Amino acid sequence: MIQPFDDKYFMRKALQEAEIALFEGEVPVGAVIVCQNQIVAKGRNQVETLNDATAHAEMLAFTAATNYLGSKYLKDCTLYVTLEPCQMCAGAAFWSQIGRIVYGAEDKQRGYQHWQCKVHPKTKVTGGVLADESTKLLQSFFKKMRQ
Amino acid sequence: MIQPFDDKYFMRKALQEAEIALFEGEVPVGAVIVCQNQIVAKGRNQVETLNDATAHAEMLAFTAATNYLGSKYLKDCTLYVTLEPCQMCAGAAFWSQIGRIVYGAEDKQRGYQHWQCKVHPKTKVTGGVLADESTKLLQSFFKKMRQ
Repeated sequence: MIQPFDDKYFMRKALQEAEIALFEGEVPVGAVIVCQNQIVAKGRNQVETLNDATAHAEMLAFTAATNYLGSKYLKDCTLYVTLEPCQMCAGAAFWSQIGRIVYGAEDKQRGYQHWQCKVHPKTKVTGGVLADESTKLLQSFFKKMRQ
Repeated sequence: MIQPFDDKYFMRKALQEAEIALFEGEVPVGAVIVCQNQIVAKGRNQVETLNDATAHAEMLAFTAATNYLGSKYLKDCTLYVTLEPCQMCAGAAFWSQIGRIVYGAEDKQRGYQHWQCKVHPKTKVTGGVLADESTKLLQSFFKKMRQ
């Protein structure tokens, strides 16, 4: 059976959010939260725009998803995010008890796994989905920053 | 010289926020952020009220402080919080580069130190300020929950 709504499909939607962030002069990270094959929330890094160091793509998406669903827990949802979450966002994922996290590129500097942080024990994690596309966006941002 | 604005003074302000949270049916945790002896932001746990698992006292206070100061970094600020921050809130403190964290009671279940999480290397941390008052508020909440 054809499965059009696979991990790559939703990661492409998260990458579109990252592209908007890049256009806005932000470190390009994007996220979507999916429940029963439907996107219930989107987020993109807005640290500069909102002048708020906590305004990561995932944080904004978590709050948007809980608003939309009317539930503070996201047990039946999947977070798609273009970069491995940091300690803060992994902590938020813990509290939301999100069912699954799918991320794109690894973050060897600030990623929660490299910092040996936790997500909820029931949360399943898949990394490396469309990682190259995510890395290319990040590289183009940092190249532009250096110029 | 008399120093009226000491750690206990500001922790009492954070405890007042925790008391409001208790009154609202929330786990009683409160926070204030102080810059040059002035409170620039307050926050109290609003997870139930906002139906958002990320709405911890510290998170709300960080965002309020950056809004008020117009700066995403809080290097010259001190966070007073009645309970040891969790992984998420310690991660937010990391990104804000807050100068100092003063907390009340230890959180042996979810505290960032017990989870071996990080704050910014330049952030100074003091624990145990009015810890008994914080613990009493938490105990009264959980006692009421069990009834």
